[in-house]
Amino acid sequence: MARSGLATGDLGAGPALAVDIGGTKIAAAVVDADGTIRATARRPVPAHRPSEVSPGGREPGEDGVAEEVFGALRDCVGEALASAGIAADAIGGVGCGCAGPMQWPAGVVSPLNIPSWRAFPLRARLRELFPERPVLVHNDGVALAAGEHWAGAGRGVRNLLAVTVSTGVGGGLVLGDRLFHGTSGNAGHIGHLVVDVDGPDCPCGGRGCVEALASGPRTVHRARAAGWAPAAGQPADGHTLAAAAAAGDEIACRELARAGTAVGAGLAASASLLDLEVAVVAGGFAQSGPIFWDALLAGFGRHAGLAFVQRLRIERSDDPGRIALRGAAAFVLAPHRYGWPD
Amino acid sequence: MARSGLATGDLGAGPALAVDIGGTKIAAAVVDADGTIRATARRPVPAHRPSEVSPGGREPGEDGVAEEVFGALRDCVGEALASAGIAADAIGGVGCGCAGPMQWPAGVVSPLNIPSWRAFPLRARLRELFPERPVLVHNDGVALAAGEHWAGAGRGVRNLLAVTVSTGVGGGLVLGDRLFHGTSGNAGHIGHLVVDVDGPDCPCGGRGCVEALASGPRTVHRARAAGWAPAAGQPADGHTLAAAAAAGDEIACRELARAGTAVGAGLAASASLLDLEVAVVAGGFAQSGPIFWDALLAGFGRHAGLAFVQRLRIERSDDPGRIALRGAAAFVLAPHRYGWPD
Repeated sequence: MARSGLATGDLGAGPALAVDIGGTKIAAAVVDADGTIRATARRPVPAHRPSEVSPGGREPGEDGVAEEVFGALRDCVGEALASAGIAADAIGGVGCGCAGPMQWPAGVVSPLNIPSWRAFPLRARLRELFPERPVLVHNDGVALAAGEHWAGAGRGVRNLLAVTVSTGVGGGLVLGDRLFHGTSGNAGHIGHLVVDVDGPDCPCGGRGCVEALASGPRTVHRARAAGWAPAAGQPADGHTLAAAAAAGDEIACRELARAGTAVGAGLAASASLLDLEVAVVAGGFAQSGPIFWDALLAGFGRHAGLAFVQRLRIERSDDPGRIALRGAAAFVLAPHRYGWPD
Repeated sequence: MARSGLATGDLGAGPALAVDIGGTKIAAAVVDADGTIRATARRPVPAHRPSEVSPGGREPGEDGVAEEVFGALRDCVGEALASAGIAADAIGGVGCGCAGPMQWPAGVVSPLNIPSWRAFPLRARLRELFPERPVLVHNDGVALAAGEHWAGAGRGVRNLLAVTVSTGVGGGLVLGDRLFHGTSGNAGHIGHLVVDVDGPDCPCGGRGCVEALASGPRTVHRARAAGWAPAAGQPADGHTLAAAAAAGDEIACRELARAGTAVGAGLAASASLLDLEVAVVAGGFAQSGPIFWDALLAGFGRHAGLAFVQRLRIERSDDPGRIALRGAAAFVLAPHRYGWPD
């Protein structure tokens, strides 16, 4: 594969443009070589229009929506540049984290929660905006891992796992002091570690994966099946479930704890296989308080038998939004460590 | 940590001495820089003498037994050198794989099945035999991984897992075209991946690990508890269990398959986390025929949901004894890839 990154210093003192695309929001930032964020901007992802979807067939409005989503991204980028007072041609490179799956390193993306982007050529489109600049696109969990290592809870360690527990359960790895991509850019999929061979089916096609037990939608689904319901007018989502658990709802507590236990078991498995120093956990459940977090630590403790596994340091991500932007910037600002291999 | 390996070429054309120490046998070989094995030798590990063990206290005969084991190793090495027609001082370096656990990179070993070696300074003792030569000691699973990558089923791939299913379940990793050690030399412990959160206790202190479900002793234990017994005069071990399964014994078949399923789930989990190209499986069960192997492949298939996981190539190790010796030699013959990091 052709080397897409820069040698250190190729950017001179030029800042990077960082982009982070999730299922519901787009964020952009101008980031200096030392990690300083000069300016940020945010946009919601323009909504999917299910009314335009013809059942089982072509979705006639989707091309327009795909461009609308890219337009929101372009506006968001423009606002970040303007707010930083920097012209587009002064940007040294572009790093982008995007919800998966994607073809890597091509940066052709099909984010599960942006249905209008199916095989959308995100990297190519960003290169049109920033010609002759390096543009690197990777999974959002990978950007978080790079950010936590470069400028977050994992500074100075050699071996780190970042995990996001959200609509899905994703992650990224720094191994031997470098971002680890795996054979096809898919390393870090802790969500599809099997932790319960007889567990529930997983959207991936497997069974008993961490994601099948711990994702927001799966946890809410279990709670609803057990009789939990949100207060009138509230959505049944991970946020209201976590709030109900915090308020003492028994079912919500039990299912949130079950999610935490599964993530903890996944961390123990990952540390057993990889002899890691740090795991950083992000996402709404991780921020929701002790019910999830204590269950995560207990699940880890129950499955961390060997001394080197028990030594894993488990941290809550401090500010995953900003850290993921810094990580995306690091793809191009520190490519010897966070760029793509030759 | 000081660099213990050599730059490529420091050994000139000098061969390496390779040593492989398991629970019951010691093997040594003289290996050329191109992987050719000039000569090998084997010795049984001198037996532990339980009669000398004072219950709960000091084991008076152990110092003597520890030296007896090292004496057998020295004899084995001497035979390999003599058989290759090479003097000890013509050896360029020594690579050694040893059953774990151990302190790495110090090479202070405590192999579970050699009770007289507890914190035995194996690397220091080998350095006395080969002064001023690099001597590198690592887990036997790591030597197998290096060997499969250097000269076995994983030649030319970037990301490989080697697994040995035996008295324990161990392994080693090559990631990004280099041997991956982890933070404290413990990477590759696939035996302690949790695959069944509610599974049986594991000797490691955890629960539901691959090893708790798939090791030889655990599988035999389950079969015996279910009513299986070996033929009169035969030991109840993994070998007789696998033979009984091959002959159609229902309990033996079921429990061997259960072990295979657990290993397959562990491979799917490892491939999900690491986006591997190849997994190579060694050990008596892997060699025992289709009952274990088919269950392993089915267990993998059941848990390999994502396309990149399904692409994993799973191979049976061709000749793990010789491959592990080659891998140990590679520690010193190809240190840029298989040596220790600076």
